[in-house]
Amino acid sequence: MDIEAFRKAGYQAIDRICDYYASMHERPVVSQVKPGYLIETLPENPPEHGEQFDAIADDFQKLILPGITHWQHPNFFAYFPTANTFEGLLGDLYSSSVANPTFSWLASPACTELEQVVMDWAAKLFGLGDQFLCKSKVGGGVIQTTASEGAIAVCVAARTRYQKLHPDAKLEDLVIYTSTQTHSLGTKAGLVLGLEVRALEVKAEDEYALRGSTLKEALEADLARGKRPFVVIATVGTTSSGAVDELDEIGEVLKDYPSIWYHVDAAWAGVAFACPEFRSAGKLDAVNKYVHSFCTNFHKWGLVNFDASALWVTDRNYLTDALDVTPEFLRTKQHDAGLVVDYRNWHLGLGRRFRSLKVWFVLRSYGIEGFQRHIRKGIEQNAYFASLVCASSEFELMTKPYLGLSLFRLKAPESVTAQGLAATNDLNRALYSRLMEDSDKLYITQTLLNGVICLRFAIGAQRTEIEHIDRAWKVIKTSAQAIVQAL
Amino acid sequence: MDIEAFRKAGYQAIDRICDYYASMHERPVVSQVKPGYLIETLPENPPEHGEQFDAIADDFQKLILPGITHWQHPNFFAYFPTANTFEGLLGDLYSSSVANPTFSWLASPACTELEQVVMDWAAKLFGLGDQFLCKSKVGGGVIQTTASEGAIAVCVAARTRYQKLHPDAKLEDLVIYTSTQTHSLGTKAGLVLGLEVRALEVKAEDEYALRGSTLKEALEADLARGKRPFVVIATVGTTSSGAVDELDEIGEVLKDYPSIWYHVDAAWAGVAFACPEFRSAGKLDAVNKYVHSFCTNFHKWGLVNFDASALWVTDRNYLTDALDVTPEFLRTKQHDAGLVVDYRNWHLGLGRRFRSLKVWFVLRSYGIEGFQRHIRKGIEQNAYFASLVCASSEFELMTKPYLGLSLFRLKAPESVTAQGLAATNDLNRALYSRLMEDSDKLYITQTLLNGVICLRFAIGAQRTEIEHIDRAWKVIKTSAQAIVQAL
Repeated sequence: MDIEAFRKAGYQAIDRICDYYASMHERPVVSQVKPGYLIETLPENPPEHGEQFDAIADDFQKLILPGITHWQHPNFFAYFPTANTFEGLLGDLYSSSVANPTFSWLASPACTELEQVVMDWAAKLFGLGDQFLCKSKVGGGVIQTTASEGAIAVCVAARTRYQKLHPDAKLEDLVIYTSTQTHSLGTKAGLVLGLEVRALEVKAEDEYALRGSTLKEALEADLARGKRPFVVIATVGTTSSGAVDELDEIGEVLKDYPSIWYHVDAAWAGVAFACPEFRSAGKLDAVNKYVHSFCTNFHKWGLVNFDASALWVTDRNYLTDALDVTPEFLRTKQHDAGLVVDYRNWHLGLGRRFRSLKVWFVLRSYGIEGFQRHIRKGIEQNAYFASLVCASSEFELMTKPYLGLSLFRLKAPESVTAQGLAATNDLNRALYSRLMEDSDKLYITQTLLNGVICLRFAIGAQRTEIEHIDRAWKVIKTSAQAIVQAL
Repeated sequence: MDIEAFRKAGYQAIDRICDYYASMHERPVVSQVKPGYLIETLPENPPEHGEQFDAIADDFQKLILPGITHWQHPNFFAYFPTANTFEGLLGDLYSSSVANPTFSWLASPACTELEQVVMDWAAKLFGLGDQFLCKSKVGGGVIQTTASEGAIAVCVAARTRYQKLHPDAKLEDLVIYTSTQTHSLGTKAGLVLGLEVRALEVKAEDEYALRGSTLKEALEADLARGKRPFVVIATVGTTSSGAVDELDEIGEVLKDYPSIWYHVDAAWAGVAFACPEFRSAGKLDAVNKYVHSFCTNFHKWGLVNFDASALWVTDRNYLTDALDVTPEFLRTKQHDAGLVVDYRNWHLGLGRRFRSLKVWFVLRSYGIEGFQRHIRKGIEQNAYFASLVCASSEFELMTKPYLGLSLFRLKAPESVTAQGLAATNDLNRALYSRLMEDSDKLYITQTLLNGVICLRFAIGAQRTEIEHIDRAWKVIKTSAQAIVQAL
């Protein structure tokens, strides 16, 4: 494809993306295709001769779009929102156009320096302390692929630091601490590093937050039996229920265990720190007072399209001590002179995308004010949804709504509750299955909270308005009535 | 930014990308900015109020482009080529537009199924055996971020498999085998997993290829002292010199050690398997006969822009046994029924980009024929470059050129060789420093090959023609003359 053909195909792509967004609300939110729909349609071999790009672009509309679950759909309330803004999209486009792997400063100085700048901007936007700034030359921020990969990098840094402090510690005895509510990133870090993960219990009466006392008890018991906890992953806004762990209590406990790394995962909720009024509930003060590392995903609720997971550390040397690879062919005089950051030593891979550009585009186009407006809108909408649940006699909220997330369930009639929790769970599972039959109209997810099946309603898609919430609520109510009537 | 503003900004982006490619040859290949150029220019805080997009887009031209090292530049001969095609760029654009994290089939069926289809296409394009096909339902391919992350995933699978076979094996005793020529991915995998890496020696007389006998000796010695090698990472086309390890010999040795995983990294060279005439030198038969996993990067020489690292395994269960995370909120009825692949369990993270789309666009637009033409062009150009080196009296080739890579150095005059290898190395380091002063005109890298400093000339950028090689050669010769005259 030559430059003029690209211009034509590029204009067409832009037009079709405009059409996609203009008509998205008419599409089913969850893709309605059956397993194998595409595998069975496409040829088994690549074509011998090149095809016209027009035909390829048309196939995207015909074959791919029907197989897309539209995460930007106004009726998407599942998992957590995945951001996509036009600004982010343009950032990604410009960044793709200068394709380079940005593994060292010299490989493309702009990529490295812009990442330092926007990570400092973001740190200030979210109210993080100066110790997290790149400008500090001690701490600093880095854009990771996902919060999972960031957590692996953090655990590697924490393990290396711990082993330096305790050269006698055996890998078999090392333990990663999470809570039972930690995102799968905790489990995955354990799987990848081959280390034990201990998921500490949380209680409903604590709103599923990890308490300092639980941590202390576990630490004492584990240390007594020769185990070596070396990192605690706490969460602000758990995936299941939006719980905020007791970061202060945890920090106070960890004061007595200075070789344990303290990581806070706020992959979803962290971007709400852009609004000062949500900092206290998310325990930002404790983040600034106690932790070694903090993560939040721009690509969830933060207006920047996937992938852009922001990770900050208070001491960059812990990352580079653990992850530095600099063979001869990667040496540069700027690195040797200590003048520049080489981000390859801050993450798992070598090459990396130029992701700071889309963050820069979004932060400049929205400004602090626009970013705050977006966050506040989602939270207000969720307050409205929660009020609908509260006002209904058939449903109940299962936790205090947090930011853009509400957990609720269908109240079981007495005939069901008499059979115990399992029967109420079955009823809500049935409701969820029924709702999935309407997955062209709305998409929500279910979760298991200390044995209780709950429905999750997560708000934050840019195009969601109150009318969409009203409509979703109507579908949920109608489905519930059908389920109850069928009892 | 609303839809119409996006249309305008999108057209502008396409036009500017056209301009960028049309005028790229006029830009300096390596960015000429000084460390701190951007950090010192940009404000320290994000703007309070949103800015006009026009100004933001203009700043990309004014502030970012001068800080870009142009990997697509026709005079870029450093590292390895990084692919970028308009087709790949358009694929990435469409994929960004339907932003979703594709961690399960249901999250967007098209993303999962297209990945299976294109990875089977690619397997056939490269002549991989049926055991690597997704269609086999046993093996299969998955697109990883980079070869480093793929190697970590492979090592995790290998470790898990080994520990199942040898439950008594201690982590402290596990060893990852590489050669001294393995890409930094070997070291990084060891750093991440916290395991010992043993880099086996290679010899100049073997053209820097790892031999079976070296492996066997190391295995016997390590096993005798209680060590547990559990994975061997061999390479087709090492980064330093393009060496091809003796895959057959290694495979034969490993027959006696069935619990050791055999991974072949062909991150750069693997795409040359698209041309049948290069399969024998790259030992494709041995890949098909012996190995558990194989990796090649579309995003290096393979026409698909970063990131798109292709990894195949002969048994997908080894990946999913090691990496499966499926909490309640990620369960889907299609997964429970075993009907679909959920790629989250094939890699390190949870969410992932829809990367198969750009691979699909490229393979369809080029066809097998066009892909082969691109590879052959680079190899022919390198044969031409090598012939220039051979014909000159001042330079010598340091290895047999392989595919698009030549290693050479300045022959030292007798007065220098009399002082030993260090002096010849110093001379070539001086030549390299001098060439870096001309880094606006060409970009090559240096490497250290068993103690010998060599210059690397890597060909493969789409826009490189014979005239660029001639011009580069002239710069190299002129610089060398200046260095020699100054002796």
